[in-house]
Amino acid sequence: MAAAGGEKKEERDYAIAAAEAFAADVSRLLAGFRQHLHDRTAHHLGYPYNLNLNLHLSALQAQFHNFCIINLGDPFIESNYGVHSRPLEVAVLDWFARLWDLQKDQYWGYITSCGTEGNLHGLLVGRELFPDGIIYASTESHYSVFKAARMYRVKCVKAPKVTFQKPIGSVSVSGHKFLGCPAPCGVVITRREHVNVLSTDIEYLSSRDATIMGSRNGHAPIFLWYTLNKKGYRGIRKEVQKCLRNAHYLLHHLREVGVSASLNPLSNTVVFERPRDEAFVHRWQLACEGNIAHVVVMPNVTIEKITSFVEDLANNRADWYQDDESVLVPCIAKDIGQENCLCGLHNKKSSRTA
Amino acid sequence: MAAAGGEKKEERDYAIAAAEAFAADVSRLLAGFRQHLHDRTAHHLGYPYNLNLNLHLSALQAQFHNFCIINLGDPFIESNYGVHSRPLEVAVLDWFARLWDLQKDQYWGYITSCGTEGNLHGLLVGRELFPDGIIYASTESHYSVFKAARMYRVKCVKAPKVTFQKPIGSVSVSGHKFLGCPAPCGVVITRREHVNVLSTDIEYLSSRDATIMGSRNGHAPIFLWYTLNKKGYRGIRKEVQKCLRNAHYLLHHLREVGVSASLNPLSNTVVFERPRDEAFVHRWQLACEGNIAHVVVMPNVTIEKITSFVEDLANNRADWYQDDESVLVPCIAKDIGQENCLCGLHNKKSSRTA
Repeated sequence: MAAAGGEKKEERDYAIAAAEAFAADVSRLLAGFRQHLHDRTAHHLGYPYNLNLNLHLSALQAQFHNFCIINLGDPFIESNYGVHSRPLEVAVLDWFARLWDLQKDQYWGYITSCGTEGNLHGLLVGRELFPDGIIYASTESHYSVFKAARMYRVKCVKAPKVTFQKPIGSVSVSGHKFLGCPAPCGVVITRREHVNVLSTDIEYLSSRDATIMGSRNGHAPIFLWYTLNKKGYRGIRKEVQKCLRNAHYLLHHLREVGVSASLNPLSNTVVFERPRDEAFVHRWQLACEGNIAHVVVMPNVTIEKITSFVEDLANNRADWYQDDESVLVPCIAKDIGQENCLCGLHNKKSSRTA
Repeated sequence: MAAAGGEKKEERDYAIAAAEAFAADVSRLLAGFRQHLHDRTAHHLGYPYNLNLNLHLSALQAQFHNFCIINLGDPFIESNYGVHSRPLEVAVLDWFARLWDLQKDQYWGYITSCGTEGNLHGLLVGRELFPDGIIYASTESHYSVFKAARMYRVKCVKAPKVTFQKPIGSVSVSGHKFLGCPAPCGVVITRREHVNVLSTDIEYLSSRDATIMGSRNGHAPIFLWYTLNKKGYRGIRKEVQKCLRNAHYLLHHLREVGVSASLNPLSNTVVFERPRDEAFVHRWQLACEGNIAHVVVMPNVTIEKITSFVEDLANNRADWYQDDESVLVPCIAKDIGQENCLCGLHNKKSSRTA
């Protein structure tokens, strides 16, 4: 009996030790993961996400994160599932509606989890209104537009430039996805008098408002700038202006170290020569296309981060192009214009013949 | 000058007071909302959501909720956006793959935000494999199946019963959505040899695992019960068994107070007569269809909650049916079978003629 008792104790001790080892493994894994996320957040430049999430979140966390809040379907239809935040969802829609001078009965919408979902749903609603409709989309539209055409079996015509009618409640609003241009090009699937769809997205809110509403990231509300300005939303406007100012700062410093770069008016997206080394692109999480790369200057892209990035790029370039600068610095005049290109051919100031 | 200084101070005081009043308003709003969510959570019975969210969340909150973690697109393709948790996403898929004896190169998938998204995406992938394919779906399938057919312009044939081939990696797995029956009926859009789609959903994990992985709710893993049992996943099996036991407890107590009710074998969904009062349905967030209602016994549906619910129902029924019990207690034999119906006609034991 004593031996059996001893065996049982041994078994129990073994089980406890195994559980402790498991818990320690999980802690180690999570700590490593946290460190990794911290590093990746500190070196992020290429996507339009506002990574500043430490504003109101902790207070909300404590209050709401143990509830299973789900806003099932249409926020304008009453739900029998009671653990939802539909009044807040509708409040966000109302905010946009007021911004765009829409009357209470003139709009419908919901908050999507991302811009892609906004485009997908908006184009689906458009197709339901016009079953034989055609999507005319700029070749520079976001890829989700062409994905939607395939998903929903709608004919899609790519055009180099589509005249955008009016930025209210249209099915999909997008500038040049890569050059960050707020110029009027985008997608039109329906005429204004038929539009009662507000296919927008909480991400277009500034980080502060997005956080209040529970979203985890915030797109640059650049294309809302005109409207915000007109209506006098000072807090958001200030944040947008900071982004635009920092974008100019980045442009200036890139050109100062000899990097071809451009920035469209009222854009927070700086376009420049694609770094030669993929490890560098990966380290700074730059978005690239062909010969160009871009940085989206969101509220979390600070002067310090920009300075550190430009320094890193300049140091690396010195290595990449040490043998023959005039040949190897890529010409990106066709992407960003001759006046912005600092390659051997277009940069008269620093060219070898000067 | 003194007057101007006084005015400025007055203005500043006014601005501070306004900001304080606003902060107080927001606090009041949030406190009221929290109380509302608390009440709705305490009175929730009708949907397959596990509302027990207080397990591992607080520790995770502190570590990760200030990161903007986004798993963009396919988790098997490397992302240039670095603030993601793809290795954890793939680990969940691997877990299911092992459960279903799938080899490493035999599956693909991603974690959706809900079962509906799983069905939508699975059926879309099915359509891409078979562009002229037809969806054969049981009339009792989840509504998302018919929604998918419309969204993706796929012909859909409703059949009273569809033989389900094998529950691995099939496009959509669903029992009878309302009766909670794990019997083999569902949707098949493709043959097994073509299936490399693991269109599953983190919600099928138990609450504990779902919480670890960051999901906010968990479907009853009833249809996984056989497999879990076979593979010896004791922790999850225990939780499932608790749900099944509590479902039996609810069934027993409903019938004890004279309510017609039924429960399919191995199901956690108790079906019973639809309460006569919509306010009662709303209070307990019951899902209803025709003459029947159901309660999904998830891990947060405790014995205490069940007791309180049955008591509330019995008290209300006494009022609803006080005038003429034999006429007004609805017959739901065609929904749940004569043997489960306690109406005046089918309940021989308590009928007036006895």
